Amino acid sequence: MARYGPQYGPDITFLGVDRCALDDPATYAGADVVIVGAPFDGGTSHRPGTRFGPMAIRQTDYLPHDGSRPHLALRVDALQDLRVLDAGDVEMYSGDVERSIASLEEAVHTVAAAGAVPLVLGGDHTIALPDATGVARHHGFGRVSMLHFDAHADTGDIEFGSLYGHGQPMRRLIESGALRGDRFLQIGLRGYWPPPETLSWMAEQNMRSYEMTEIGSRGLDTCLTEAFGIALDDCDGVFLSVDVDVCDPGHAPGTGTPEPGGLSARQLLDSVRRICLELPVVGLDIVEVSPPYDHAEITAALANRVALEALSGMAARRRGLSHDPAGPLLEGR
Amino acid sequence: MARYGPQYGPDITFLGVDRCALDDPATYAGADVVIVGAPFDGGTSHRPGTRFGPMAIRQTDYLPHDGSRPHLALRVDALQDLRVLDAGDVEMYSGDVERSIASLEEAVHTVAAAGAVPLVLGGDHTIALPDATGVARHHGFGRVSMLHFDAHADTGDIEFGSLYGHGQPMRRLIESGALRGDRFLQIGLRGYWPPPETLSWMAEQNMRSYEMTEIGSRGLDTCLTEAFGIALDDCDGVFLSVDVDVCDPGHAPGTGTPEPGGLSARQLLDSVRRICLELPVVGLDIVEVSPPYDHAEITAALANRVALEALSGMAARRRGLSHDPAGPLLEGR
Amino acid sequence: MARYGPQYGPDITFLGVDRCALDDPATYAGADVVIVGAPFDGGTSHRPGTRFGPMAIRQTDYLPHDGSRPHLALRVDALQDLRVLDAGDVEMYSGDVERSIASLEEAVHTVAAAGAVPLVLGGDHTIALPDATGVARHHGFGRVSMLHFDAHADTGDIEFGSLYGHGQPMRRLIESGALRGDRFLQIGLRGYWPPPETLSWMAEQNMRSYEMTEIGSRGLDTCLTEAFGIALDDCDGVFLSVDVDVCDPGHAPGTGTPEPGGLSARQLLDSVRRICLELPVVGLDIVEVSPPYDHAEITAALANRVALEALSGMAARRRGLSHDPAGPLLEGR
Amino acid sequence: MARYGPQYGPDITFLGVDRCALDDPATYAGADVVIVGAPFDGGTSHRPGTRFGPMAIRQTDYLPHDGSRPHLALRVDALQDLRVLDAGDVEMYSGDVERSIASLEEAVHTVAAAGAVPLVLGGDHTIALPDATGVARHHGFGRVSMLHFDAHADTGDIEFGSLYGHGQPMRRLIESGALRGDRFLQIGLRGYWPPPETLSWMAEQNMRSYEMTEIGSRGLDTCLTEAFGIALDDCDGVFLSVDVDVCDPGHAPGTGTPEPGGLSARQLLDSVRRICLELPVVGLDIVEVSPPYDHAEITAALANRVALEALSGMAARRRGLSHDPAGPLLEGR
Amino acid sequence: MARYGPQYGPDITFLGVDRCALDDPATYAGADVVIVGAPFDGGTSHRPGTRFGPMAIRQTDYLPHDGSRPHLALRVDALQDLRVLDAGDVEMYSGDVERSIASLEEAVHTVAAAGAVPLVLGGDHTIALPDATGVARHHGFGRVSMLHFDAHADTGDIEFGSLYGHGQPMRRLIESGALRGDRFLQIGLRGYWPPPETLSWMAEQNMRSYEMTEIGSRGLDTCLTEAFGIALDDCDGVFLSVDVDVCDPGHAPGTGTPEPGGLSARQLLDSVRRICLELPVVGLDIVEVSPPYDHAEITAALANRVALEALSGMAARRRGLSHDPAGPLLEGR
Amino acid sequence: MARYGPQYGPDITFLGVDRCALDDPATYAGADVVIVGAPFDGGTSHRPGTRFGPMAIRQTDYLPHDGSRPHLALRVDALQDLRVLDAGDVEMYSGDVERSIASLEEAVHTVAAAGAVPLVLGGDHTIALPDATGVARHHGFGRVSMLHFDAHADTGDIEFGSLYGHGQPMRRLIESGALRGDRFLQIGLRGYWPPPETLSWMAEQNMRSYEMTEIGSRGLDTCLTEAFGIALDDCDGVFLSVDVDVCDPGHAPGTGTPEPGGLSARQLLDSVRRICLELPVVGLDIVEVSPPYDHAEITAALANRVALEALSGMAARRRGLSHDPAGPLLEGR
Repeated sequence: MARYGPQYGPDITFLGVDRCALDDPATYAGADVVIVGAPFDGGTSHRPGTRFGPMAIRQTDYLPHDGSRPHLALRVDALQDLRVLDAGDVEMYSGDVERSIASLEEAVHTVAAAGAVPLVLGGDHTIALPDATGVARHHGFGRVSMLHFDAHADTGDIEFGSLYGHGQPMRRLIESGALRGDRFLQIGLRGYWPPPETLSWMAEQNMRSYEMTEIGSRGLDTCLTEAFGIALDDCDGVFLSVDVDVCDPGHAPGTGTPEPGGLSARQLLDSVRRICLELPVVGLDIVEVSPPYDHAEITAALANRVALEALSGMAARRRGLSHDPAGPLLEGR
Repeated sequence: MARYGPQYGPDITFLGVDRCALDDPATYAGADVVIVGAPFDGGTSHRPGTRFGPMAIRQTDYLPHDGSRPHLALRVDALQDLRVLDAGDVEMYSGDVERSIASLEEAVHTVAAAGAVPLVLGGDHTIALPDATGVARHHGFGRVSMLHFDAHADTGDIEFGSLYGHGQPMRRLIESGALRGDRFLQIGLRGYWPPPETLSWMAEQNMRSYEMTEIGSRGLDTCLTEAFGIALDDCDGVFLSVDVDVCDPGHAPGTGTPEPGGLSARQLLDSVRRICLELPVVGLDIVEVSPPYDHAEITAALANRVALEALSGMAARRRGLSHDPAGPLLEGR
Repeated sequence: MARYGPQYGPDITFLGVDRCALDDPATYAGADVVIVGAPFDGGTSHRPGTRFGPMAIRQTDYLPHDGSRPHLALRVDALQDLRVLDAGDVEMYSGDVERSIASLEEAVHTVAAAGAVPLVLGGDHTIALPDATGVARHHGFGRVSMLHFDAHADTGDIEFGSLYGHGQPMRRLIESGALRGDRFLQIGLRGYWPPPETLSWMAEQNMRSYEMTEIGSRGLDTCLTEAFGIALDDCDGVFLSVDVDVCDPGHAPGTGTPEPGGLSARQLLDSVRRICLELPVVGLDIVEVSPPYDHAEITAALANRVALEALSGMAARRRGLSHDPAGPLLEGR
Repeated sequence: MARYGPQYGPDITFLGVDRCALDDPATYAGADVVIVGAPFDGGTSHRPGTRFGPMAIRQTDYLPHDGSRPHLALRVDALQDLRVLDAGDVEMYSGDVERSIASLEEAVHTVAAAGAVPLVLGGDHTIALPDATGVARHHGFGRVSMLHFDAHADTGDIEFGSLYGHGQPMRRLIESGALRGDRFLQIGLRGYWPPPETLSWMAEQNMRSYEMTEIGSRGLDTCLTEAFGIALDDCDGVFLSVDVDVCDPGHAPGTGTPEPGGLSARQLLDSVRRICLELPVVGLDIVEVSPPYDHAEITAALANRVALEALSGMAARRRGLSHDPAGPLLEGR
Repeated sequence: MARYGPQYGPDITFLGVDRCALDDPATYAGADVVIVGAPFDGGTSHRPGTRFGPMAIRQTDYLPHDGSRPHLALRVDALQDLRVLDAGDVEMYSGDVERSIASLEEAVHTVAAAGAVPLVLGGDHTIALPDATGVARHHGFGRVSMLHFDAHADTGDIEFGSLYGHGQPMRRLIESGALRGDRFLQIGLRGYWPPPETLSWMAEQNMRSYEMTEIGSRGLDTCLTEAFGIALDDCDGVFLSVDVDVCDPGHAPGTGTPEPGGLSARQLLDSVRRICLELPVVGLDIVEVSPPYDHAEITAALANRVALEALSGMAARRRGLSHDPAGPLLEGR
Repeated sequence: MARYGPQYGPDITFLGVDRCALDDPATYAGADVVIVGAPFDGGTSHRPGTRFGPMAIRQTDYLPHDGSRPHLALRVDALQDLRVLDAGDVEMYSGDVERSIASLEEAVHTVAAAGAVPLVLGGDHTIALPDATGVARHHGFGRVSMLHFDAHADTGDIEFGSLYGHGQPMRRLIESGALRGDRFLQIGLRGYWPPPETLSWMAEQNMRSYEMTEIGSRGLDTCLTEAFGIALDDCDGVFLSVDVDVCDPGHAPGTGTPEPGGLSARQLLDSVRRICLELPVVGLDIVEVSPPYDHAEITAALANRVALEALSGMAARRRGLSHDPAGPLLEGR
């Protein structure tokens, strides 16, 4: 059979949605979203383990794996309202970053070219390069803006002697022209990386990076609204890349390069929901979940919910639902 | 000896308070609060372990087990100012939910009938059914309102082929008439459960459920104030049921069905204190602490503090203390 | 669809073998072995968590889930040489031991009646009652001997007010006549349970229990050989029940009632292989794997290998292979 | 060789800064900051392990140990802009609190007398006594105010029969006159300790303690601004003592006496940065990191970042940088 | 009340045996064995945590805390057949080794002088000095031989500038004359400590140390038999000191200075049983259990069983039972 | 500076031995053994994490990092008696297996060419290819025999589309002619890999593989003696490759592909000591220690001791010491 299935473990799908195989277009005809696993951790600069991320994100939930997840607040059931399929994992050998990137880019492009939104489950952040490139190849280089949640800018040049790794994808994306630097929005940066010369390069690209100090001072919602304006200016779609380390290590310990002082899980979930509800998301990835460093599966559960909030926001957007966050859950009260 | 003591482990009491035995009324005459352990985890739909909850909540504290806990902010010592006794655990075989529920209901009713407030340490949330029923049998069916902190509505109908389990107690309580649906206040719901038909049933009962989106938008204090108004309308007392999973998994990993995006520990403690300070609480339970999934005992410590905040609030209320949250800790400054 | 699938988690099969559904006999026609999951932990007297045992045993392996496991020493590939199918889990609500037992007994009997060997993945040891009863109903009460690896005799009478639990199945099996007491062989007992009156009852039934002191003194192989002689005397088949706590907690920490001083993993694997190679095994279960207490999955991996050693031994027996344990792995040297 | 190096483990320095030896003044001539390890946990009243704190704080970082840490928001590189040296650990035998305290006080005084700021890595909070005393001996008794972040007041009198331990240093400091009670600012207190008589003693000293209720009600920034005013009134410098348990256990589980309901990591980092940017800090310690209770090193990483935020704030202050927290990270946008 | 109770946690006794208070002789009149907790970890040279050892050893068991433990193999119930009492913990401040040692020596001597066998639960191995001294003061200096199970010789001279710590008690005992060097038997030594000069000192004292190489080559039983001969030669009693790190870290990870390549748990339990069955044990301690480093409580469970094997051996010895290790568990088979 | 130092963490050396830099021959002139770190985990087929192996093996010890380790049984101090230096880590980017292998081979060859024995600390087993090749390039292709301790044969052909990975080095070594198949001795194989076609290839190479069944049946010492004979036949030296998963997961949980039923830690240590004492070892590596899966550092401690036993055996061999394993530790008794 053509389907590769999960690389590390049994052949399951995200919460029980139907399967598809990327080399058999009939299996994903008409799909709204196709989930792709990217079990690669060869590009991390510190703690590995994200190769088990796709498996963990797919299965970490206390509810039945029945392909249905009705969203309390939005009143949609994304897994039912949208046609969401799971293509399994792309074979990605962690010892060969270049071959792995190429294989993933082809898979993502295949999904995008079929008119579906690729939702890529990482893996370390190396994969943002093939993820966004694969999407841009379909929608047009420079036509997709980036909303990037992360503690780190990921704009390094050469690390460990390589152009490819989890600290460099955003630079490669801008260099290649796949994405425009002035439509690159970063949320949640903090800490002690990158060094000034890299920040200068970023400034030259006209990137807009919201460090946690600014977010704390101005408010996350204000920053997001501003970023949305930039993202929608002369772009056709948005790529959302969520590095789970944007959250504080207390909320997301299971990751490779945890940086204290991040967003709360609630803030991340609200932001992702709002983005997918308000913006035309054409691709997304969720990265840097490292199960060996997780506790009681709380990081994997968070990543699973990031995926569901994104899908639920997209479902509500497609159905044209309006949402009043201050409204009551139940009618009549 | 009649006293059963803790079911799993040595015979200890909550932080060293005095013991009582429910089959010997003389031992709890004049009690203000009687603690009852409910070491039952047969009703959970996912990760078990709450059978060790009563033991963990009783003993998780770095201070001596001396039956004294002076509250910094409220300036009461609940364990001294109130007569707080510990009746040990009710024997609850996790393999027999119906017998276990019946035994617990009798124990709780015995406490309530003696004029004391039962404080039940779970165990999974299955026990809210016997807890609130036992209280309602004494105070009158429909005369007690419910303040329910939880990520989940717990209003399921039949699960795993049974009417009884940790996802269903709130439905059973309303169906039996023990509690009124329109005096049922839920705080902290979120995620992807229950499905729409259950939400419709809840709306029909005129329940009022504050989902995290509403709480985030309107503010927790505003929501609580509104809920207090409903709770006090034509009811004689309040039952407070705290599922520790109302908190974010980062603050409470040691639980069975963790749902990302919850309250902070600080928010929960402040809410519980305020409820017991402002409302006539006649019964309470603290549930879903699962020590095998805890880390460094942080979830057990949180539940221990929920109990102490509740007791301290009750003590301050009985002594008619007013409390200015903006005031300084020490006099003179 | 009729298939229930795993109760807790995604629908996977043991290492990728084919599925079957017990309510559809065509799906398991011609099966040699049918795997049944028994995710029940309502009967444990201490640490729960074995409800996740079937899931953990099915998936804990670093090799691909491809339905093939060539055995180095025996030179068989049990998953290929035998027709091994996985029927998924029986629905077992941990809050209702009696209903759960009845459901499992039917499932096991269905398998046995179809001419296949049931391999039941627990769950706590409560399930040995329905497992061996289901087998005995097909092969005849009293016609199947028992080889029971455990730290505990599991011959308690009434515990927690119930006849059913993980400390009592062996007594129930003998009382009902399903198994003969004098064909009941126990390996690995130790510690401080049961009390003398239970030992007296066991002696009256003519059970043969090899405590670790005897095993250490006489040698495990000698004891096994002696036990095999008893097991084969006027019985048609053998049921093998492996409680993973027969191993030392150092080798199997992920269990509910660990008793120091047990077998090594190597000893257990060798014993299981020898039993399935030398005796006519007609049913087996592997119980008491509790993933929340495991570390680095070593207990789940051990249980997975117990299953594979058993299947490999059975495959070699069916193919009439002889095996020289002292022989070299590779030919020619 | 004179240098003692780390007491528990290999001889490393904080993130690779240069070494110095306290008995060789030439090695620390011209230093701005000298790091001193205080691997002592003999004074804790509950969970030990802080002896491994200095090692963990020095090495917990995913970035290279290259003695450079450019601060994203402040645009300084404290380890380069300041002359920061690491003197290794003071030999502190946990079984002898009095000798250990004396040795540490000498070391800290040596650093202060050399004109450098001592940054002491604990160790349990016992060490605040020698830390602040050593600084006050140089700057003058009563001339240094204290900013103390902690869940606990640490003003106990005699505990376990001793005057010295982690619950008592603040009392000893005021009693000796090293610090003035009315220039003692405490942030983050909460819970059930100390008892009223100790609070009365604290009020008599005119200490100012911000309990979490007041902080939640008035806002942390408001409280800090008020505290800064007191701290600067007729004092020449500030000692900053950070007990990592001021943070919520969700953000800092790896500590000895965790008290639920604390600050978030973000709040602590912002506060420390602001203090070192706005106030003349002359000494500081970071205490109560207990690696055996940590998970995925998140508490050690937080403490490492507390040190870096403090150093970065000091570096920016020395360079006279102004900082607009609402400003963008990158120029031009 | 005079009774101190456990220093860290609720006031429990070893598996539910009756309490006594050392300052009230009436409470322990006629005792055969008195358990004393020594929650001291100030003397460890590496990982602390043994202060929680007494609590862990007392309560780690999956069986009810009912003061009864019938031994399967020996057919005694030591907690019933002997009068075993628990005196709680001696107050031992880890920051003051000298005061702590003195307090413990008095407690142990009090027990011995009352005619009971002291069973001391550590705590780090520092306590062997007061334990054996307290016993020797009653039975006579030089009249008690030592059987010492350990990976380390614990014969260091001065460490961390102190005469007292967990690596030195055996030297102090011989120097003081409490114990004779030529009646000092050590079992299980291995690794890379102590250095040659210490080994020379040991040889000069005519100590007999069985390193693991010798044990592996000659057999543990042979070595024990030889050691018994020496121990009984011109001595009146035996002190048994069991450092749990004599076992391999796989069997006992929860300890401070784990040395790979040790005994199995089974070997230790058999040895302890045999010693207490065959020799006149007049005192014993079980040390170096460090719960923060344990997993799934396996080390604490092992130490609990070491205590029970010792007590059971003593009970059988007092009742004059003979024991055939090769005999069957149940009569009649 | 030329020295690369450890890739992940501070710049430490193995237990404090002196440093050297491979690009500066003067720094390792006259070395007996040069330690090289190989922090590569890009080649593992399952759980990663061995990139932290070199750091963990270097520092996991409870004794001071003083460059001295007197061996109790052998009475040598390898770190003093031999000139042992640590060259730090070779830069090995896990995302690029081919470049990493090439860099390591050069480093190992440099050491061997300088007349020293390379001791390589892995890293996953991929590194055996460059390790043994680097040695063979100096001593001559086909002139070095291999003693390989492992659960797995590591003779796979192509995996994940690559010739290089942790399951294939032994095949590559034989194919290249670096090592002779008929001088390839494997100890400890077990489980379900490799498949028959690979076993046939191995037989064709005349490899000799001792599976655990044979070892259990014939005895480890007998097998080793036989293997030594083969190894010394027409070869000039021996390469020792120790995969820590040769031990049972109970003794070595911190590894990537744990296979139940392995050697005990004691067996491995004795074997390694004997090999280095009796055979002319010219190179060795210790691989597959994965700290994220370790508990209480027991696997890292075991690997550290494997290194020390090897070094101690080599030191004793060079000094011509004879060793009687049955002899007493101390003279005179």
